Amino acid sequence: MNYNLSDLQQMEKLQRTNFVNSLTGFKSACLVGTKSALGNTNLAIFSSIVHLGSHPPLIGMFTRPDSVDRHTLENILETGLYTLNHLTRSMTVKAHQTSARYPREVSEFEAVGLTPTYLENFLAPFVEESVISIGLKLVETQRILANNTILVVGEVQHVLLPEHCLGSDGFIDLELAGTITCSGIDSYHATEQLMRLSYAKPNLEPHRIDLH
Amino acid sequence: MNYNLSDLQQMEKLQRTNFVNSLTGFKSACLVGTKSALGNTNLAIFSSIVHLGSHPPLIGMFTRPDSVDRHTLENILETGLYTLNHLTRSMTVKAHQTSARYPREVSEFEAVGLTPTYLENFLAPFVEESVISIGLKLVETQRILANNTILVVGEVQHVLLPEHCLGSDGFIDLELAGTITCSGIDSYHATEQLMRLSYAKPNLEPHRIDLH
Repeated sequence: MNYNLSDLQQMEKLQRTNFVNSLTGFKSACLVGTKSALGNTNLAIFSSIVHLGSHPPLIGMFTRPDSVDRHTLENILETGLYTLNHLTRSMTVKAHQTSARYPREVSEFEAVGLTPTYLENFLAPFVEESVISIGLKLVETQRILANNTILVVGEVQHVLLPEHCLGSDGFIDLELAGTITCSGIDSYHATEQLMRLSYAKPNLEPHRIDLH
Repeated sequence: MNYNLSDLQQMEKLQRTNFVNSLTGFKSACLVGTKSALGNTNLAIFSSIVHLGSHPPLIGMFTRPDSVDRHTLENILETGLYTLNHLTRSMTVKAHQTSARYPREVSEFEAVGLTPTYLENFLAPFVEESVISIGLKLVETQRILANNTILVVGEVQHVLLPEHCLGSDGFIDLELAGTITCSGIDSYHATEQLMRLSYAKPNLEPHRIDLH
């Protein structure tokens, strides 16, 4: 079946939102932890996290252009620091609940029942319940002209990770850490590894490689 | 264990690449289909696909800044059209093999054994083996200053999709379509749905919602 742009434009709003958000396939679901200049903590689920480069280690995320309050972006611009915290299965409902529109003075940590934890000399809160967390420093923002979405670019400062999830080749076993994935705007999924494949070269069939 | 920026900088190159590429969690793996102005087809696997907005329906992807040939980007800039094609389990090895550095005159479709297919009045090739495919029109590019990575923004023109994978609320059941996910630079994963959750509101516990 071919759904073209005009079919999409004729869908009702929620239907189109579900549809278009499903198109990009499975996504990373992360809780973004921030603190305002006044010291209020904020926690919000994002699914628009993307790898931008390894050297320097850069991660991008997109925030919506809505005129409603965007506390996460405000806090990042105020303090320059934020955290990304992977979701595990047992955190799913609490993490999803952070997407409710709480006023800025309410901390989603308290509202949903997750625990802020800190590193020395790093202002932004990590989520204690997460198995993998990343501390980032803002390096750049870009505005997408087509819809005013903002790209936030951060440099990795800290990675909190159980040592047994890290392979000798640097690969992190996300399944062992219990990281889950999401699709659309509200669907959460566990994963099962199919294979890792060797570096591809012309005229050479890739072979499976072992995890550790 | 805390790995900080200086630990990352001291890793050897492949180790750091594996490590940092794992940090963003599970990702969408898509084959990007393009055609040059001269008519050569190209197919390349990308894992930096991201939803930018639903109205208009916009999808972003990042391409590397390397000085080596970037045929996909060249073709998109030449013709303004490209396709995203979801991976299924049986396509994994062929899709991974598209990342080998073939010369521009070689079509990865032929080199890896996937089949180009076309819609009327749409120049870019779709992958016949994919269950879900999207045809896009280039609307904007942005350069990330921090590492010269290019963000390509496209507007959805066509979505090819089996009707039975589409729910009445617009949600696309990616698992039913067999779409897989990836992590790091070389790991592929199947998924198993845990739950869908209702729209979050303050002081109201989200409840599970059914698929159809």
